[in-house]
Amino acid sequence: MTEKAAPAPLARTVLQQCLHARLQVAPPGPESEAEWVQIDRGMVIYVCFFKGATEDMLPKMVSALLNQRLCERASGGLASVLELRGSVLVVPQATLGGRAKGRAMQYHGNIGKDDGLRLYLRFVSLCQAQLQAAGGAAPSAAGGAGAEGAGAEVKHGTYGNRQVLKLDTNGPYTHLMEF
Amino acid sequence: MTEKAAPAPLARTVLQQCLHARLQVAPPGPESEAEWVQIDRGMVIYVCFFKGATEDMLPKMVSALLNQRLCERASGGLASVLELRGSVLVVPQATLGGRAKGRAMQYHGNIGKDDGLRLYLRFVSLCQAQLQAAGGAAPSAAGGAGAEGAGAEVKHGTYGNRQVLKLDTNGPYTHLMEF
Repeated sequence: MTEKAAPAPLARTVLQQCLHARLQVAPPGPESEAEWVQIDRGMVIYVCFFKGATEDMLPKMVSALLNQRLCERASGGLASVLELRGSVLVVPQATLGGRAKGRAMQYHGNIGKDDGLRLYLRFVSLCQAQLQAAGGAAPSAAGGAGAEGAGAEVKHGTYGNRQVLKLDTNGPYTHLMEF
Repeated sequence: MTEKAAPAPLARTVLQQCLHARLQVAPPGPESEAEWVQIDRGMVIYVCFFKGATEDMLPKMVSALLNQRLCERASGGLASVLELRGSVLVVPQATLGGRAKGRAMQYHGNIGKDDGLRLYLRFVSLCQAQLQAAGGAAPSAAGGAGAEGAGAEVKHGTYGNRQVLKLDTNGPYTHLMEF
């Protein structure tokens, strides 16, 4: 193949479209039920940062993810999640940094936990800011109908937790984007 | 980073663990309902082939995917889907070959449809053969309980169709593997 080999990425994302997605953000306790967040029509962003990733790269990365035409319109044709006025569910996913070594996966390239948490939280808040700037984001408790464009919002998982996820799609349109 | 840049891949897979996954294999018609396949505990393999991919590479690729320790055991620790005696759902996913060009995704690196279909069907049948050889695969109509190891089987989507997917996980453990 004639393509240039890409340099090793600093962040890896997998993107899937959803009609509805539900993510556990706190496991059930001895006297409490599990807590969940959910979105309707929109995009799930699984994200993993590698060693060397910095906050500087995040605004451009978030802008690319939210503006890239990865979603299918109900009418056909492709649109970005911002154009769709869809919601976004961010799922921290350290497993995405895995490299096969024999039959085991190794995660030596992944960023450390403290830096990873800091980048993750900044990534989420930039998603919220850009969705809001595009006129889509509502305050997180607002709910909103399932209709295209109504009450688009950003929800996200708890960094370091188990990401118990339920996903309902009309075709996930799985994409990989690295930064 | 000191890692060598990898050569351009010939196949890209994304792997997710599931408790249950359901995939539409025929859309509803004017006088028929949609047809679905489903698996319980196991692994969803989203697969995309690039130009230059050949049948020769498939046995090693399937062996790597089914033997790689990508799944979490109920007891903790990681296991391959074969060790778990889990089921496999193969989802053809051409979108995985996308490369960003401006705000649009381009799929110029993807293999042509005829070759892609041939490789896809061979990939599925190798998954079935390897699962069966490992003692897991049951004839496809056998059903089987949801318990770990009971009635492991391979189900797969229809190449070229919309992949309407419903996924229920206890943590998707999303991994990327390229070949």
